[in-house]
Amino acid sequence: MLSTKWISFLSVALVVFVTVFASSDRAESNPQGERKTMLRHVVIFKFKETSSAADVQKVVDGFRGLKAKIPQIASFEFGTNNSPEGLNDGFTHCFLVTFKDEKDRDVYLPHPAHKAFVDVLKPHLEKAMVIDYWAGE
Amino acid sequence: MLSTKWISFLSVALVVFVTVFASSDRAESNPQGERKTMLRHVVIFKFKETSSAADVQKVVDGFRGLKAKIPQIASFEFGTNNSPEGLNDGFTHCFLVTFKDEKDRDVYLPHPAHKAFVDVLKPHLEKAMVIDYWAGE
Repeated sequence: MLSTKWISFLSVALVVFVTVFASSDRAESNPQGERKTMLRHVVIFKFKETSSAADVQKVVDGFRGLKAKIPQIASFEFGTNNSPEGLNDGFTHCFLVTFKDEKDRDVYLPHPAHKAFVDVLKPHLEKAMVIDYWAGE
Repeated sequence: MLSTKWISFLSVALVVFVTVFASSDRAESNPQGERKTMLRHVVIFKFKETSSAADVQKVVDGFRGLKAKIPQIASFEFGTNNSPEGLNDGFTHCFLVTFKDEKDRDVYLPHPAHKAFVDVLKPHLEKAMVIDYWAGE
């Protein structure tokens, strides 16, 4: 049996522990829940007019499939342009690949799975734009 | 005074509570800690050769300052190109603005603070590229 004094002490200790744990978790993330110090790899494609919707889908599926083949990809997201501003210059598909650091990007770029994907992409690619950056606020 | 039985019960209840709380938080996020169903607004700038580093910094600071003026901006991040691929076509600065939905983007685009920022940007802008997309995996 513990005294109420001990129970109070343990409760306070637990609250302090949980608070510290929760705030240390928050320190790694920005208010939107995204980790800081991520290396972003923004890839934008304009496809050939001669490429069919099925061709484009094959490219999208190929890119999406890289995450399972290259563990250095920390996260992957993708979407098609829906900006009302008309400043996309014919580019329609945007891929946001995130790496932990440049070392992981160095594994990704020459990776056989990435190269195989580029072979699928090439016949349908009108133009690609790639911008990488360290995510800062 | 509480019996050890009660203390055990309370401990288990607390663990269950913390676990449920933590996993419900996780359910909102993908494994990288980023929320799903975000509207991404990717903005890439190529600056004029005549613009100085200070001019460019003024633009960056202006863009960065919008988050405090337009609450519809859910998150903002920014970085300069460091891709080794050479596919940036002269574009150097990438801004990733995230909105909850299209309604928030509809507030942002014509917002006076956004328009004032564009006035700061325009004299130094060689070219802008904008791609918006719903983040999917």
